[in-house]
Amino acid sequence: MLRAVYPGSFDPVTNGHIDIIKRTAKIADEVVVGILINKAKMPLFSVEERVKMLQEATCDIPNVKVVPFEGLLIDFAKQMDANFVVRGLRAVTDFEFELQMAQTNHKLEPGIETMFLTTSIEYSYLSSSAVREIAAFGGDVAQFVPDCVRVCLERKMEEKRRV
Amino acid sequence: MLRAVYPGSFDPVTNGHIDIIKRTAKIADEVVVGILINKAKMPLFSVEERVKMLQEATCDIPNVKVVPFEGLLIDFAKQMDANFVVRGLRAVTDFEFELQMAQTNHKLEPGIETMFLTTSIEYSYLSSSAVREIAAFGGDVAQFVPDCVRVCLERKMEEKRRV
Amino acid sequence: MLRAVYPGSFDPVTNGHIDIIKRTAKIADEVVVGILINKAKMPLFSVEERVKMLQEATCDIPNVKVVPFEGLLIDFAKQMDANFVVRGLRAVTDFEFELQMAQTNHKLEPGIETMFLTTSIEYSYLSSSAVREIAAFGGDVAQFVPDCVRVCLERKMEEKRRV
Amino acid sequence: MLRAVYPGSFDPVTNGHIDIIKRTAKIADEVVVGILINKAKMPLFSVEERVKMLQEATCDIPNVKVVPFEGLLIDFAKQMDANFVVRGLRAVTDFEFELQMAQTNHKLEPGIETMFLTTSIEYSYLSSSAVREIAAFGGDVAQFVPDCVRVCLERKMEEKRRV
Amino acid sequence: MLRAVYPGSFDPVTNGHIDIIKRTAKIADEVVVGILINKAKMPLFSVEERVKMLQEATCDIPNVKVVPFEGLLIDFAKQMDANFVVRGLRAVTDFEFELQMAQTNHKLEPGIETMFLTTSIEYSYLSSSAVREIAAFGGDVAQFVPDCVRVCLERKMEEKRRV
Amino acid sequence: MLRAVYPGSFDPVTNGHIDIIKRTAKIADEVVVGILINKAKMPLFSVEERVKMLQEATCDIPNVKVVPFEGLLIDFAKQMDANFVVRGLRAVTDFEFELQMAQTNHKLEPGIETMFLTTSIEYSYLSSSAVREIAAFGGDVAQFVPDCVRVCLERKMEEKRRV
Repeated sequence: MLRAVYPGSFDPVTNGHIDIIKRTAKIADEVVVGILINKAKMPLFSVEERVKMLQEATCDIPNVKVVPFEGLLIDFAKQMDANFVVRGLRAVTDFEFELQMAQTNHKLEPGIETMFLTTSIEYSYLSSSAVREIAAFGGDVAQFVPDCVRVCLERKMEEKRRV
Repeated sequence: MLRAVYPGSFDPVTNGHIDIIKRTAKIADEVVVGILINKAKMPLFSVEERVKMLQEATCDIPNVKVVPFEGLLIDFAKQMDANFVVRGLRAVTDFEFELQMAQTNHKLEPGIETMFLTTSIEYSYLSSSAVREIAAFGGDVAQFVPDCVRVCLERKMEEKRRV
Repeated sequence: MLRAVYPGSFDPVTNGHIDIIKRTAKIADEVVVGILINKAKMPLFSVEERVKMLQEATCDIPNVKVVPFEGLLIDFAKQMDANFVVRGLRAVTDFEFELQMAQTNHKLEPGIETMFLTTSIEYSYLSSSAVREIAAFGGDVAQFVPDCVRVCLERKMEEKRRV
Repeated sequence: MLRAVYPGSFDPVTNGHIDIIKRTAKIADEVVVGILINKAKMPLFSVEERVKMLQEATCDIPNVKVVPFEGLLIDFAKQMDANFVVRGLRAVTDFEFELQMAQTNHKLEPGIETMFLTTSIEYSYLSSSAVREIAAFGGDVAQFVPDCVRVCLERKMEEKRRV
Repeated sequence: MLRAVYPGSFDPVTNGHIDIIKRTAKIADEVVVGILINKAKMPLFSVEERVKMLQEATCDIPNVKVVPFEGLLIDFAKQMDANFVVRGLRAVTDFEFELQMAQTNHKLEPGIETMFLTTSIEYSYLSSSAVREIAAFGGDVAQFVPDCVRVCLERKMEEKRRV
Repeated sequence: MLRAVYPGSFDPVTNGHIDIIKRTAKIADEVVVGILINKAKMPLFSVEERVKMLQEATCDIPNVKVVPFEGLLIDFAKQMDANFVVRGLRAVTDFEFELQMAQTNHKLEPGIETMFLTTSIEYSYLSSSAVREIAAFGGDVAQFVPDCVRVCLERKMEEKRRV
């Protein structure tokens, strides 16, 4: 049984994330999507909203499980009994940061590998923060996120405008 | 009629920005310098102060117009009827971020190009935040910004010390 | 009259090059595609073959001219009476090299600018050398190059096998 | 059955390569080490020598197979019935090149993934060419390569000196 | 008399910092470790705590002095009568930022050089912020920081939990 | 006595190299400029010519010595009894390569440090190969190299044209 953990904030999940999940699900027997709860940051979507959007967006991939977590990634990966952590790579600055995190995690827990997939070309420019910004100014995000996320983003922006 | 938009925060405008504006003004028939109003950040200078400094610093370039904007760059560029967006490139980390922004903008509006100029060597190390920091500690910024900006910076720092 | 020079080896021209040419032709009044004759390298295609492929692949863009050149790019650009040089940027290592070349050319001839376009996402991984290698081992290059180039590549590889 | 292909020149195999092979062998059911035969380059060791050194250096890892190949990596991976290709990442310039190769291969054969492992910290500076250069000038390579490779390198250098 | 300034936040000092200090102390006659007081940031440790930890961690290197400073690095370096500033380099994104700072400082004060040492391989992934995060979630930092720092970190985290 | 080794091909020495030599000569008591003899490459200038040009270009810096060497840099540095090796850094791709070399050399000889200086802004785009290319096509190199090198380059190019 080969189990992968794919961690992130997913605030919100984009088509780029879904692409990494799908491709990992073809290699590993199970993919645990770990939603990081970072109390120091104010996310746009609550953990519950993020879990729901991810579950809906991955409902056609049977071997995916969505689990929120707090604390160190490596502790979460051990607790999930994972063989490796998966990360998507887009750019050089990503790469530097990811390299440092992978090396630190390897020092803390040599038994768990970090494997990288390069983001598919058509999603290589995408980030959750760009999606949030485009939505905030009424831009069209249909080509960047799954349909259920687009609906949630529009509803969220409407709520904000009312406040 | 070839019109370029050059967006930025310009908090404050530096000699590096002026260099990009001058060089773009030789290629395009009109250069619209767009000052981004970002409500999430606390700038050192108000939008009105930034408009005034830019107008003074570019008063000898006839085909330059200074216009503040809010929201998505690509909406501003369309509204200005621009053919392309100009960005200055200094370094690799700039480049990665700029590349992602250019690709996202191209997806949102394929009709508007992003063109890059490399910052002239003598200004390649300059940034508005470095200028603000040097001025905050009483360092000499005369070689980094136009003279009108130097005067405004000194006045601003004096105001701050009085508070 | 705004004239751009787009230099390269084009051994052979790829869809990525064509994309840069098309986008420059929307900004500039004329685009001169300059084919660099480098006597120190053994190209796959002769200069004559490269001129012909480029002319055929750009025959639907009226303001494009194909001209071979030898020597310094900046001398060629001056001779063509160009306002700026265009270069496509794909990656960080490209960027470093391009930056150095742009700065050197600026020192040699301050009157001619270098402007950069980022390669469209769908062609960002493409290079002439990858195309040559794929063709050499009988791989399918149909999605990487214009059709006329695909035909020439197949013919060239057949010739080589006969030798 | 999860099968990985790990391609390279391995001229000669270093401790960094062995580290990647060992870590992949914990994830995949079988690791095929593919030795690229590149007729355009003059290797220090023949294909036969490289196969032998790799077999000896990996003799304690049961699920590893060493296979030389010519032509496109993606054709070799398909022929081996591999699920993914593994590559080690050391540095930014590696990363750029690897990214382009991964994207090109994905276009040629979307069914085969490329996964990246970051080279373990203690081998992150290592390269076959550095090893060859150190050995050529009589430097000590004991900490850089498996013992069987060190012996072969010393013998090879002695042969060269005799010629 | 060759005097070096090694500036940083040291919140807290890591084994990577100690390594740079030790290596600089073999080149320079005196190394002044400058602790930057940045009033805009909320450090985990007070300036006094950071001075004490650094003094304890470097007590076996005779030619090291620990001095807190506020304001511009270059003013501090002049005041200390330093010949050069030392910085450790880990990664590309470090490098870009460091390059810009070095160039700005050179413009402000051409008489003081910036020299770079590459962080030793075994500490190349380390950062004070990673150490703080690991400690915050109860991870073991023994292999990342001097023993006196580990003790202080554990005490600090206990204090925080009580609040 | 603090002795630095500054290695390179210096084919030919540029103003950027001279800048690094001058700045190192202010830190170290003696700077040994090491000219690498690489039998695998065909230089434009012979070792003797390169020694002579470097001696002439540094004749006003008393603590500089020019010494050709073959083999591993680290062996040369030990033989010269050097405390550290100096390298100039221009760009990210430089940095990656230099980092790997510094780490490898540190493994081979931990007693000798590698220290980096960033090339002064006005020479940051310069390389010996660019200088050779510009000279080959009759371009003006007066702003890139010391005057004695310009004269040698012109003479060398004339010789080549006669052949």
